[in-house]
Order: sequence, then structure tokens, then C-alpha cells
Amino acid sequence: MKIALAQIDAHIGNFEGNVERMLRAVEEAKTQGADIVVFPELSTCGYPPRDFLDFDDFVHLAEDAVQRMARAAQGIAIVIGSPTRNPVPEGKDLFNSAYFLAEGQVRFVQHKALLPTYDVFDEYRYFEPATEFKILEYKGKRIAVTICEDIWNIGNENPLYTVCPLDELAPLRPDLIINLSASPFNYAHSHGRIHVAKANVLRYGIPMFYVNQVGAQTELIFDGGSLVVAPGGEVFDELPYFEECVRTYDFDEVMQGGGRGEQAKEKYRLIHDALLLGLRDYFGKLGLKQAVVGLSGGIDSAVTAALAARALGPENVRGVLMPSPFSSGHSVEDARRLAENLGIRYDIVPIAGVYESYLQTLEPHFEGKPFDLTEENLQARIRGMILMAFSNKFGPIVLNTSNKSEAAVGYGTLYGDMCGGLSVIGDVYKTEVYALAEYINKDGEVIPRNSIVKPPSAELRPDQKDSDSLPEYDILDRILYQYIECLQSPQDLIAMGFEETLVRRVLRLVNINEFKRYQTPPILRVSGKAFGMGRRMPIVGKYLA
Amino acid sequence: MKIALAQIDAHIGNFEGNVERMLRAVEEAKTQGADIVVFPELSTCGYPPRDFLDFDDFVHLAEDAVQRMARAAQGIAIVIGSPTRNPVPEGKDLFNSAYFLAEGQVRFVQHKALLPTYDVFDEYRYFEPATEFKILEYKGKRIAVTICEDIWNIGNENPLYTVCPLDELAPLRPDLIINLSASPFNYAHSHGRIHVAKANVLRYGIPMFYVNQVGAQTELIFDGGSLVVAPGGEVFDELPYFEECVRTYDFDEVMQGGGRGEQAKEKYRLIHDALLLGLRDYFGKLGLKQAVVGLSGGIDSAVTAALAARALGPENVRGVLMPSPFSSGHSVEDARRLAENLGIRYDIVPIAGVYESYLQTLEPHFEGKPFDLTEENLQARIRGMILMAFSNKFGPIVLNTSNKSEAAVGYGTLYGDMCGGLSVIGDVYKTEVYALAEYINKDGEVIPRNSIVKPPSAELRPDQKDSDSLPEYDILDRILYQYIECLQSPQDLIAMGFEETLVRRVLRLVNINEFKRYQTPPILRVSGKAFGMGRRMPIVGKYLA
Repeated sequence: MKIALAQIDAHIGNFEGNVERMLRAVEEAKTQGADIVVFPELSTCGYPPRDFLDFDDFVHLAEDAVQRMARAAQGIAIVIGSPTRNPVPEGKDLFNSAYFLAEGQVRFVQHKALLPTYDVFDEYRYFEPATEFKILEYKGKRIAVTICEDIWNIGNENPLYTVCPLDELAPLRPDLIINLSASPFNYAHSHGRIHVAKANVLRYGIPMFYVNQVGAQTELIFDGGSLVVAPGGEVFDELPYFEECVRTYDFDEVMQGGGRGEQAKEKYRLIHDALLLGLRDYFGKLGLKQAVVGLSGGIDSAVTAALAARALGPENVRGVLMPSPFSSGHSVEDARRLAENLGIRYDIVPIAGVYESYLQTLEPHFEGKPFDLTEENLQARIRGMILMAFSNKFGPIVLNTSNKSEAAVGYGTLYGDMCGGLSVIGDVYKTEVYALAEYINKDGEVIPRNSIVKPPSAELRPDQKDSDSLPEYDILDRILYQYIECLQSPQDLIAMGFEETLVRRVLRLVNINEFKRYQTPPILRVSGKAFGMGRRMPIVGKYLA
Repeated sequence: MKIALAQIDAHIGNFEGNVERMLRAVEEAKTQGADIVVFPELSTCGYPPRDFLDFDDFVHLAEDAVQRMARAAQGIAIVIGSPTRNPVPEGKDLFNSAYFLAEGQVRFVQHKALLPTYDVFDEYRYFEPATEFKILEYKGKRIAVTICEDIWNIGNENPLYTVCPLDELAPLRPDLIINLSASPFNYAHSHGRIHVAKANVLRYGIPMFYVNQVGAQTELIFDGGSLVVAPGGEVFDELPYFEECVRTYDFDEVMQGGGRGEQAKEKYRLIHDALLLGLRDYFGKLGLKQAVVGLSGGIDSAVTAALAARALGPENVRGVLMPSPFSSGHSVEDARRLAENLGIRYDIVPIAGVYESYLQTLEPHFEGKPFDLTEENLQARIRGMILMAFSNKFGPIVLNTSNKSEAAVGYGTLYGDMCGGLSVIGDVYKTEVYALAEYINKDGEVIPRNSIVKPPSAELRPDQKDSDSLPEYDILDRILYQYIECLQSPQDLIAMGFEETLVRRVLRLVNINEFKRYQTPPILRVSGKAFGMGRRMPIVGKYLA
């Protein structure tokens, strides 16, 4: 038997597009001689559909898509993911299901049992867990059909769950495991995924065919990397990351082991490629082409613009340089050099005139108060407004250039540098931004060396440096990582050797700036704990604040 | 036995403050002669603590608070809500529990069984459901202790759940039911809550003592309205809405029925009072005092400013009038009159100078393109920036003035009129804003009559009216309500008699403007389906878009 893995980029709610995409993959799988082609989790409606699932009409459209796909299951069997209505009144209204389609019909349905409800996942908000587990029989093979998280409770050792679907299925003597996944990327996750796939295979002694969604859904980036694991536990093949792919495997060959093995995984290459896909899909799925970025001469805007130029093409990216009276001479030079390196169009729009007109307009109301954060924020907001004006006049989307360190401690201006349609590096700490810049420069200068080596500054008052108001980033980022990703307490951090006053100050900054993060654009997620849908904090909370 | 209901305003994560607040209420209950005093759900840490619960340190602080309260349980028993660690590795790490404290110790713990995971609720993200149900015995009475949602599956008829805690407890022959709740307000919810309390009492034939949290936690407003229901099903007493209260009842008197009965409930009075509490608590819990509102002369800013003046005191509210070249003469007059009616300070800051300087600065880059949305948005954003400058210079928080109809269809400018720290009327449809204005004016003109009767306009181009680009609000709002609150499909709406083209246009506008709503301030929730944490939509989704 030949099994095709079809790692596709489903688009949430785009039933028409998703069916067309799946039908093309079915044709490709047929060309490759496949007997069965397997798609990712919820491939009819895209993952995660979120509260669209509350609309009866949306579920109805998914049901229609299943029927259209069933009609196409001629000469090949198809496994797709789609929501199913729960016929029993008790429990949630839907199941998250895998559909086996053959000879023009739905022949088998298996629901998902383990429903992740943590971090970015909300599955128990919508779905009832499966309690029944059946084996699919097809062409003489007995297939255990599982969905994503279903394989993440190996031997019931994951404390989150009390059921292990494959332990239920094992006594029914399956020959192979199929898994339909929508497993979002973070830079450490592919290791975990391979570990889990192997551990399952070794436990049951049968091969696994694991298909992951690829593509970005706003902030969530799905990386593909679908897997075939041979019964001895070795990775027989791993599909590419960050691109669609249909590839067919002969079951008997997989049983013999060997194969291509794993791909190399390097943190900054993964983050780089993930962000390109995140950018491409945000624009592509919204039907947009062009981006505009404010170029300060600093590293954050340089990395953002470089990623945008690679993702969208330099002809679709426009830079705007907006020097103020406090900008240093080299800032404009560094930004100009970046734009030239990237081959993107740029405009220089000095903000002094507008800044002066605000000062004049506000002077009668400011009661002689001295220059303070107000005037710094004015400059940042004028820049935000100019970018939005370019966006309104010519159509490009403003890319936000904030990094994770800034977003964490609130070192940014709401409606100023925190504006934009999408945050590109908002899940990348400042020290990681430097490493990403070096990665971008690995084949020659793209990001000007001076933008990398000069001390970071917002340049909103004379001779300002980030280190005037923040600790050095190498210390700050380590504290932030321990608090945000590892959920450590102040006591834990102090025990690690960080200075108590600094720890309390940083954690307080994180917590009192929740109000700012509430209004930032969606952030492309590349870490295990990103700001946004996976981290839900009360604004008026008083903890460590 | 005398039972005190202590409806308090717990502050999320403010363990020190919450313990002090509870200790004061314990003293008050003692003064009233109570044998037992009951607090709301999760009263140690406040509800909803959200992802703070992922921090071991946060849970530890809640445990400390329980111990402090236990030590205070001398001469009176205390029932509080707090998270409990799950000792079993399987399942979620925590329970949502009620603690019975007496004679200085924890004497009884009951966990919550029904964990709402829909709309604004995420309880299954954190908590494991109870599977054990015990009766609390105290002073000769057998007490069934339940937590919020536990009483919302009467006779197992709620399709969301498969367990009915009181059906489990009934065979153990309880004499009364206690319920610790944190049930957020919406203008229709108090009816439902009373209905549920009554239905439980009638089913089991024993009285219920129901304690609800009061106070706002950012967007969620908890209304109090705690209840005592006599065994015949009549409301013996209902505590006040929107304020703290400790009130003690004699069990034997409640058994005889009678009492004060329900309070009157009027939609706009409830919304009005809820918004005042939402404002007060947002400011109070963040340690803030002052607000600033842009006054356009229109009804939205007028209602927002009037609510702010009532909530915070006119001395703490500042209006800013920002006429542009397109403002009509009556706008400034209407806004000035409002400020005078409210007794708030106001400044007039014409935006023509700044607007001109933007046009001049951008002219070389705009390639001779004509006046369009860009220039409209510029005006709105200049106003937003001026308000933020007042905020930065003097400290007041900018109140957002967008209504729910605008937020729904994206009729607003990001970083312009959509800015602010808190959205006051963002869950109030435009037609409801008019009704709220009339309610505010019930004892005499507060909001100038002209702001109510003139046709709504953004005044961003000559002779502009909202109805140039939107359907009339009475039709628009009915479509929006059916789609947003009632989850109806286009087909359903057409079947109701709405015109198909209009239906498709409005639903598309709602869905394509998710990106704008993503970046708006938190919205005080007064309806059954508000934008924000209770409505989670993919930005790149294609459904109806």
C-alpha cells in the first residue's frame, strides 16, 4: 500500500479554496501512485477556526466540503479533518474528526480524544472528546487513525490526560498509525514532535505517518515537517518545513526502515524561515501585496524590513525614514544603506515640521511644563501616523518593528512605534534579534554592520540610549525568558543569582504593561510562550505589580 | 443559624487587599450576629485570574491567603473561594474550590464540578472538575456547597454538562444550598440567574444562599445581586447591584418565606450603573484618578463623558474639543454645552495647524493623489495624538468613545478615534447609545438635546453623514445583533426580511474588520456577546469575508 502525506496550507474559513487545494493534492497523490492520501487536522476549514465554530452555518459549510471531497475519492482513498456535529445533546456540540473517504463516500470517522486547552489552544471550548476508538481497515491494512494531541499521551504519562487513544487501539492490532496534525511551530518544538512520534512507534512497534498543516494563520505559524517513522523508531523521512508538499511512501519500504532521516534544525534558520512564511501568509490570505516599514537605522526595523523584502519581494516593500531633530546623522545613513542593500524604495520624511506644529498647538495648554515623555511619544506617534498615511494613500500594510524585550517591559509608544498590521519580530528577544541579523547577513552584508554594533537607542531625546532606562539586554532577556517562558517566581530568579531589585523591577514592568500589549498587532509566534492568544493576563491584575 | 452573604469586590492578584477586605467583612458579619459568612468564588485571588494561575508562586500566595483567613475564623465560620492544587498527577494542576474555615482551621473543601469554557470563560484551561461531592455539617445543619456554574445544570438538562452536582448531593439530605459565584453582568443575565436559583430551590425543596462577586475586572463587570431564595421558590432577598454589601439572614426566617423580594431591573439603568462601576474599578484598581475625553459634539463622546463624570467625579474628567476645518459650528457649541452641563474642565485645541503641517510634509510623497480616506484618518489620528499628549503630560487616561455598531463594521480610525485606555460604550449599539442618553437625561438635560437629535456624522469631510457609508442604524443594529449575539447565518437574516445585498455587505464588514478590533482597548462588557475576550476570531479568516 502506498500512502501519500499531503501537507497543505489550509486557509481558515476558505472552504472553496481549501477544497480546490485538496483536490489538486489528490491528483498529485494519484500521479505518485498513492492508494491513500492523508491531509492535516481540520483541513476543510483550516486550523484553528476559533469562534467561527459557534456558527451553525460555518459547520454546515465544512460538512459540504467533506461531501465534495468524498465525491472525489475515486481510485484513491482520502483522509481529511473536519468538525462533526455531536448527535448526543450532552457535551459540546462538535467533535474534531478525521474522515476516511473512499469510493465516493464517507466510510469511517474517528474523533479526537485529547483536546489541548492551554497556551494558544482552546479545543475544549468547542469539542467533545472521543470515547470510542475503532480501527480503519483498508486494502488489507489495519490503520489506527489519530488526530494531533492524541499521540501526546504516551503510555498515559502526560499528566494532562487520562486516556491514551493508542493504548485503546493497540489490542485491535493495527499495522500502522496515521496522525492528522495542526501543530504550530516554535523554535524548539520540532525536536519534541519527533521525540513523540518515535516514542509512539517504539511503544507499539508499528510505523507512523504523521501529516502536519503548513502555513500561517495570523499569529500561528504551522511548519509542516510531516513525518514517516519506521517501526524501529528511526525517522524514515521528514517533509520540508514551511512549504506545501505531497509525498508518497510504500508501506513495505517503510517497514524495512532506512530512508532519508531527519532534516537539520538550526534555531535562527527556523525562526527566519518561519517569519518569512508568517509574513507571506498574512499578506496572501488577506489578499494583500505590499508592506511599508519605518526605518530608524536601528536593528529592529532593519531585520523587519529585510524579512519583509525576502518574504514579499523587494518591489513590494517600501521604507520610510523619518528623522527628527534628535536623530543622529548615522541613523539616516544606516537606514539608507539598508534600503539600498535590500533594493527597496524609500522615502525620507523629516518630522520636524509636524513636531513643531504639535508643540505650538499644545503650548497654550501645557502650562509651561518641561520636555518629558510627552514629547518623546509625540515623535514616535508622528512616525506612526506618517506610516499609516502611506498605508492609507497607497495601500501597503504597516509592519510593526517592536521586539519581544520591548513589548515585555513596555518600552515603546502605543499608536507610535507599537502600531502596524502585523508584528514581525515581537516574539524575538532583542539578543535574539542580533543573532537573527547575523543569520540574515551570513552570505554578505544585508543589514548594515553599524546597525548591529551601535548601542541601541530610541533617539527621542538628545544622546538617549536604551540602557539609560533598561538593564543591558543580555541580563534583561534572561530574566524575561525565565519569567515569561519558564513561569519562574521572583524568589526563583533571585536564587539564580539575579539582583533582587532588578528582578522585582523587571517583573513589575512586564505586569503593569499588559495594557499596552493588549493593543498591539498580532505577533508572529516563534517561541514556546508568545504575547498574544497564548498568554492571557488581566490588565487590572495586581500580581507583582 | 445565621448566614451572612458577603458580596465583595475582590481585585485579581491583590492578595493583601483581598484578605483585608474579607477580614473587614468578617467583622461586619460578626457584628450582624452571623454564624457563618460566605464570600464569592475565588475570593482570595479575584475572578478571573486567567494565566496568573500558571504561576506556581501565584497559587502559593492564594494558599497563604487561605491560611490567613483560617486564622481569622474564630467565633464565626468563613467560606471563601480559592484555587487548590490537584494532588493527582493526571488532569489539570488545580481545582477551583470552596474552603470552609472554622476554629482557626480549614475544615472542609469542595471543588467545582462544572467548568464553563465558552464566551469569556476559560476554566477548563486551568481546572480539573470535581468528581467527589460531600456535605458540610455545621451547627446541626447539612450544607450543600456549590460553586457558580455547579447550579446551572438543573436535572442534567444543560447540554454542556453530564454531571449535576446537586443531584449527587440531594441523597445526602442537605438542609440548604450555598453557592459561591463570580457571574459577570450582562443586561439580560440577572433574570437568568434568578430563574436558575429558583429552579434549583424548587427541585430540591431547600433554600439557597447565593453570593456573587461585585466589581469590574478590566472588561468584565460583576454585578453582585446576591440572592436568598426561600424553599417555596420565592426570592427572599436580593442584595444590591454594583456595590459591596454584607447582609445576614436567619435560616429559620428564610424557611418561612416572604422577605423583600426582587429588585426592579430596567435595561438602561442596569447598563448605566454597570458602566459606572466598570469605570470606577478600572481606575481604582490601577490606582488612577483622572480621565480625558475628546468631545466632538456627537452623542458617543457625550455619553462617554457623562458616564465618566458620574463615575469619577466631574473634577477628575477633562474634555478636549478639537475642531477641524470640517467641523460644523454647532459641534463646538454642543460639546461646550455638554462640558458646562457636566461641570468638567475643557480645552479647545483646533487641529488645523497640525493638519496643514502633515499635508505639507506628505505632499512631496503623495504624487498629487486627491483627498481620500487618508486625510480623513489624519484628522482622527491627530485628535488621538492630542488626547494622548494630554494623557502623557498630565496623567489622565484617554477614554475611548467608540460604540458597538462602529466597532462591528470598522467605522473608525485605528490610533485615532479608536484609541484609549478603556472603551466605555464599545458594547453598546448606536441605537442603544441614544436610549442610554435619554436615561442619563431623565432628570434634566445633561447631554445636549442637539447631540441627540442631529444626524450622526464623523465630520471628516464636508457635509459628511454616517448614513453616506452605512445603512441607517436601526437596520444596521438589528442585523448586527442577529449576527453577533444570535450567530445567525446570511440565509437566516434574509429569511427574516433583511435585504440580501445589505446582509452580505454588513456581515463582510464585521468579519474583515477583525484586524481593527484586535487593537482596540478593552471594552466594558454589558451584553451577552461583546467584542474582546468572549469573541475569538481569526484575523485572516475568510468566512463571509
